[in-house]
Amino acid sequence: MTIDGKTRLIGVIGDPITGVRSPEWFNEMFERQGINAAVVPMAVKAQDLQPVFEGLKRIGNLDALIVTMPHKGRMSALLDELGPAAQALGSVNAVRRMPDGRWMGDMFDGRGCVEGLREKGHDVSGRSVFIRGIGAAGAAVAFAMAEAGTKTLVLDDLDSSRVDAVAERVQAAHPGTRVIVRPIQLQADYDFAVNCTPLGMKAGDPLPFDPEVLPESTVVVDIITKPEVTPLLERAQATGHRIHAGKHMHAAQAVEAAKFFGFDPAK
Amino acid sequence: MTIDGKTRLIGVIGDPITGVRSPEWFNEMFERQGINAAVVPMAVKAQDLQPVFEGLKRIGNLDALIVTMPHKGRMSALLDELGPAAQALGSVNAVRRMPDGRWMGDMFDGRGCVEGLREKGHDVSGRSVFIRGIGAAGAAVAFAMAEAGTKTLVLDDLDSSRVDAVAERVQAAHPGTRVIVRPIQLQADYDFAVNCTPLGMKAGDPLPFDPEVLPESTVVVDIITKPEVTPLLERAQATGHRIHAGKHMHAAQAVEAAKFFGFDPAK
Repeated sequence: MTIDGKTRLIGVIGDPITGVRSPEWFNEMFERQGINAAVVPMAVKAQDLQPVFEGLKRIGNLDALIVTMPHKGRMSALLDELGPAAQALGSVNAVRRMPDGRWMGDMFDGRGCVEGLREKGHDVSGRSVFIRGIGAAGAAVAFAMAEAGTKTLVLDDLDSSRVDAVAERVQAAHPGTRVIVRPIQLQADYDFAVNCTPLGMKAGDPLPFDPEVLPESTVVVDIITKPEVTPLLERAQATGHRIHAGKHMHAAQAVEAAKFFGFDPAK
Repeated sequence: MTIDGKTRLIGVIGDPITGVRSPEWFNEMFERQGINAAVVPMAVKAQDLQPVFEGLKRIGNLDALIVTMPHKGRMSALLDELGPAAQALGSVNAVRRMPDGRWMGDMFDGRGCVEGLREKGHDVSGRSVFIRGIGAAGAAVAFAMAEAGTKTLVLDDLDSSRVDAVAERVQAAHPGTRVIVRPIQLQADYDFAVNCTPLGMKAGDPLPFDPEVLPESTVVVDIITKPEVTPLLERAQATGHRIHAGKHMHAAQAVEAAKFFGFDPAK
């Protein structure tokens, strides 16, 4: 890729930023399609989001931002307009300048998880899904699962007030899905069991749950991308389960964000 | 070049921005030297400089800025520290974050002009120099010429108050140079006649001065880079003068700014 005076910019904002993969994914697409644009990383601390965004909005050739931790929630409050998922979740992972100059954001993390599963032959429609960890990512996954037509959604988190709040919003938006909070027992007949906690990113983390108690038909899903095969997924392989790694969600989420920015990644 | 989560950023801010050449120059150097950094263009309107800079300062992996029109003057007022040329001129073309987090700027346009001439075998020390157009660029060139030891410096601008002010500051800083404002006649025995007006950038511009009246020994210098051979330089060739194009100043100025940012362009 070559950057010159006519290059359009998209920033990725987060803290820490060094592990983000979207610059490589997007820039490879731009190069393949001959688009003069670049996605660049921007290390922004939580407390600096507002002044940074105020500045970035005034850069005429900066068209969009990819929003990562810890800004997904706070950024949603700084925008002029929110898409449906962002509205329900109160968080965004992609924002863009609209033709009239206003800024709009939406959240594609959850849809990325659903699309990533679909691409690997796993349709969640009509199925039962267990999700442990209902922070920003878990809430996005829960919302997208219900949106995709899951029959039963079981949400589990140590913080009972936040899981209750998310369950209520998902249930209200998608009455066709049965939303259950904190099951007494894990060994229900889930079709999918999803880890949305950060457990598995650091060496020595305990497992978010033990797949041994799950029926063999359950697909064990992790949304962590580093390591690619988390201890949970290793353990699930050992207990005879099919696994689905975080990289699929990440790739599918980037496709959704790219479409939102006006690109066609399939080209 | 490949941009990833570890890439360091340097912005080029200006309006218009599409014609800047520093991204290509710097990024070619970074690629050659295996440095994970990128210079990216940023279109920033005059009235937006302060909020944009407030935001950019808070981006942890943005280490420096290249400052072009119309921000060179205003930016100098937003910095914590100024180098000697910036202090004398009240304008900057390069700013960087220092190890203690403060921001420092300096002006390398003028030094670029002197160095560009030197590289082509033209030493201005002890010589007489005529400069037409004493805006930010002309003032920078005047200051650097005096710093390099010109014997006589003749400054000419339609705006008599601004040329008087610059002449006074250059004279005070460099008493060894004789600084003269607005000559009655152009046909003095200048060794160098320099155009620092924007005349020649647009088709149909009048010449900033007619080289025909200059002795044949005078080197005619333009600081405009587009077109590479301006109507002034074309005319000077026709009248038998040696010419020196703006690209030399631009290249030398980039070298000076790169050194200020901590790189070694000679590597």
